[in-house]
Amino acid sequence: MTTPDRTTVAIVGGGPAGLLLAHLLHRRGIDSVVLESRPRERVESRQRAGILEHGTVDALREVGADARMDEKGLPHDGFAFHVHGERVHVDMAELTGRAVMIWAQTEVVKDLIALRLEQGERLLFDTEVLAVEKVDGPLSRDGEALVRYRSDDGAEHELRADVVVGADGFHGVARRAVPDDAVRTYERVYPYSWLGILADAPPSSDELVYARHENGFALLSMRSPSVTRAYLQVPNGTDPSSWSDEEIWDELATRTALGDGSFTLNRGPITDKSVTPMRSFVAEPMRHGRLFLAGDAAHIVPPTGAKGLNLAVADVRVLASAIGAWRESGDESGLDAYSEVALRRVWRGEHFSWTMTTMLHRAPDADPFDEQLALSHLRLIAESTAYRTSIAENYRGVPLAGEH
Amino acid sequence: MTTPDRTTVAIVGGGPAGLLLAHLLHRRGIDSVVLESRPRERVESRQRAGILEHGTVDALREVGADARMDEKGLPHDGFAFHVHGERVHVDMAELTGRAVMIWAQTEVVKDLIALRLEQGERLLFDTEVLAVEKVDGPLSRDGEALVRYRSDDGAEHELRADVVVGADGFHGVARRAVPDDAVRTYERVYPYSWLGILADAPPSSDELVYARHENGFALLSMRSPSVTRAYLQVPNGTDPSSWSDEEIWDELATRTALGDGSFTLNRGPITDKSVTPMRSFVAEPMRHGRLFLAGDAAHIVPPTGAKGLNLAVADVRVLASAIGAWRESGDESGLDAYSEVALRRVWRGEHFSWTMTTMLHRAPDADPFDEQLALSHLRLIAESTAYRTSIAENYRGVPLAGEH
Repeated sequence: MTTPDRTTVAIVGGGPAGLLLAHLLHRRGIDSVVLESRPRERVESRQRAGILEHGTVDALREVGADARMDEKGLPHDGFAFHVHGERVHVDMAELTGRAVMIWAQTEVVKDLIALRLEQGERLLFDTEVLAVEKVDGPLSRDGEALVRYRSDDGAEHELRADVVVGADGFHGVARRAVPDDAVRTYERVYPYSWLGILADAPPSSDELVYARHENGFALLSMRSPSVTRAYLQVPNGTDPSSWSDEEIWDELATRTALGDGSFTLNRGPITDKSVTPMRSFVAEPMRHGRLFLAGDAAHIVPPTGAKGLNLAVADVRVLASAIGAWRESGDESGLDAYSEVALRRVWRGEHFSWTMTTMLHRAPDADPFDEQLALSHLRLIAESTAYRTSIAENYRGVPLAGEH
Repeated sequence: MTTPDRTTVAIVGGGPAGLLLAHLLHRRGIDSVVLESRPRERVESRQRAGILEHGTVDALREVGADARMDEKGLPHDGFAFHVHGERVHVDMAELTGRAVMIWAQTEVVKDLIALRLEQGERLLFDTEVLAVEKVDGPLSRDGEALVRYRSDDGAEHELRADVVVGADGFHGVARRAVPDDAVRTYERVYPYSWLGILADAPPSSDELVYARHENGFALLSMRSPSVTRAYLQVPNGTDPSSWSDEEIWDELATRTALGDGSFTLNRGPITDKSVTPMRSFVAEPMRHGRLFLAGDAAHIVPPTGAKGLNLAVADVRVLASAIGAWRESGDESGLDAYSEVALRRVWRGEHFSWTMTTMLHRAPDADPFDEQLALSHLRLIAESTAYRTSIAENYRGVPLAGEH
C-alpha cells in the first residue's frame, strides 16, 4: 500500500459525465483525479447515445472538445414521427430557435480523454474503486473523504479528497456509499426492450424518425452520413441473434413505412446488434455529505427521449459551477442547492422520456384505452403548434436553472 | 296503442345534447321529437357541469339560448393550479385569445326547454323509451326506424323516424340497440371519487382553482357571485353524509392553501353534498345504421377537464350539420364521417381529461415514480409558455373539425 495521495475532487467514473466534470473543474483551476474501472479501449468503443442538446454542445465547446464535433457532427433542426403511416414533423429550430447535434457519445468520450491526457491531468483506467468512505459530514478542505482503489497492477491505493463525485453509472460503487436510510429511490421497468443495430447504410432520412406502428416502436437514427443506427421495440429477454439481418430490415421497413409510400428504408450490412432494456430510475438526494452523484449513478431514463447523456452533462455543469464557487469564495450555497437544482431537471427528463416512451411503444398487455390515449396524444403533436413546441423544447433541452 | 306517428329525427334524451340538437335541427327546418324519461322538474334541477367552452357558448347563441347566459354567466379568462402550496396561473385569454363561460348546465337546460316549448315543438317528459328498433340499414326518408315508448299516462306508443339520435346518457337505452359485435368499448375506472358541494358562499377566487395537495385533489368553482361549487377527492364508496360541513371546509382550506398564506377560503352554509365516481368510457363507432349516438350515451370523461358537456355539444353540432346536409341535398358524406369526426374530438377530450385527472389526484396506491412525474408535469405548466398554451387550448376547447 502506497502513501495516500490527495486531490480536491475525486471523480469515480470516466464516462462523459466524469470526464467533462474534470475538464470543467480544470478550467476553474481545480484539481481532480478521474478513476475509471475499464480499460481505455473499452471506454472508447461503447456504443451509447448520440443526440446532444445545445447545452451539451455548449459545454463541449467550453472545454475545447468541439473541433471534431464541428467537423463531423450532424446538426439536426428537427425530427419526425411516423404514426401508423402518417408523418408528423417537429421543426425544432423553427419552433424553439435551437437545434441538436448528432455526435456519438463514443466520439465525445474519445475527445475528452485525449484532451485530458494532453493536459497531463490524472485519468486512471483499469482502476477498480473498492470503496468510497468518510463522506459523512460537512464540507471541508482537509481531504477527509477517502476513495480506496486497486490500480491496473493490482496494488491497492487510497486517494484523499475534499469531495467525491460518483459518476460511475447505475451499477457503480459510489451510490452504495450512501446509507440506505439516506436515499429514496424511484423506479419503473418497462415491459419491452430495444434491439439496436449499427449498419453500413446511409441514413434513410436527413432527420431522426420515431415510429409507432401496431407492431410496436421503431427509431431510425444515424452515426454519420454512411452509418445508420436503428432500433426496434422487442419483448424483454430477446436474444439479438434471434433476429436475422433481413428480418430486422423488413421489420424496420414495416414500422416506419408511410401510407403514401413516400418513405424508403436504406439497407446495408449490419455491423452490431444488441438488446437494451428500458428503465427509469431516480435516487434522491444526489448529495450525501461530501459525496455528489451525477449522471447514471443517480438517474436512468429510457432512451426514447435521448436524455441520458444530456442529463449527465447538465448535472456536472451545475456541479462544476457550485464546486468552483465554493473553492473560490467559500460559498456553499451552490453545493447545498445542487441536488434540488439537478433533480428538477432530472424529473423533467424523466417525465419527457416516460411521455415519449409510453406514447410510442405498444405494451404487450396494453389496455386499449391507453392505446387510444397515445394516438390522440400523437395527433395533438400534429395539430397544436403550442404542444409541438413544448415537445420540441423538451427534446432540444430546457435551459439550466438560471439560464435563458 | 295509438297509431304510430312520424318525425324526421327521434331524439332519445332531453339533456343538453338532445335539446340543443332539436334546436339546431329546428333552425334548419328539420322536424324532431325529444323523448325524456324524467319529469321536467328533475331535468331542470340536476346539478351538473358548469364550464362552457367558447364553441358551446357559440352554439347556445346560434339557437337563441344566450340572453340569461349573457346576463348571469361569468366569463372566465383563466384558471389557476395550486400545487402543494404554489400557484400557477393559466391565462387562457392571453395565451389563446379565447375564454370560457361559467354557466351551469342546469340553467342551459332550463333555457333550452323553455325555448322548445315556446316554439310549440315536441318535447315529451316522463316518457320511457322501451326500445329503439329497425335502425339497421342505409339512410332513407321512409321513416323505417322505430322508437317504442311509454308516455306519462302509461300508454305505449310508436314513433317512426328517419334517424334516431341516442342522447340518453351512459345508462340510456339507445346504445343497447347496437349489437354487441358492432361496437367496441374503452373504459377506465379511477380509484377515487369527488365529494361535491354547493354552498351559499361567495367564490374564494375570481377564477377556478385546481389544487393538488398531499391529501389529494380539490377544486374550487362557482355557480354565481354568491354560490360556491367545490369538490374534494375522496375514496370510492364514500358516503357524503360521513363528512361534516366543517370537515369539508377545513379540508378544502388545507388542500387549496398557498405557502405564502395569500389565499383565503370563503365559507358558508352547504346546501348540497354528493359523491361522483370518476370514469372514462368510449363506445365506437358512434353510428349504427340509422342510429347516431351523442354525448354521454357514447362517451364519459372524468369531470376534471370540464369536457363532458362540451363534448356532447360538439357531437350535436357536427350531427346537426350532417343531418342538415343530408336533408337538403341528399349528401350523406357528413353522416358517414360523423363517427370519425366526433371521435377524434372525443379522444382529445379523453386524453386531456385523463391528463388533468392523473396529474392532479393522488391515487391511494400511487407509485412514488408516478407522483414525481405528476409534479414535474405541473412544473412544466408553470415553466413553459408553450406547454401552458397547450393546456389552455385544450381547456377552452379545440376548434371543431373544419373550424379555425
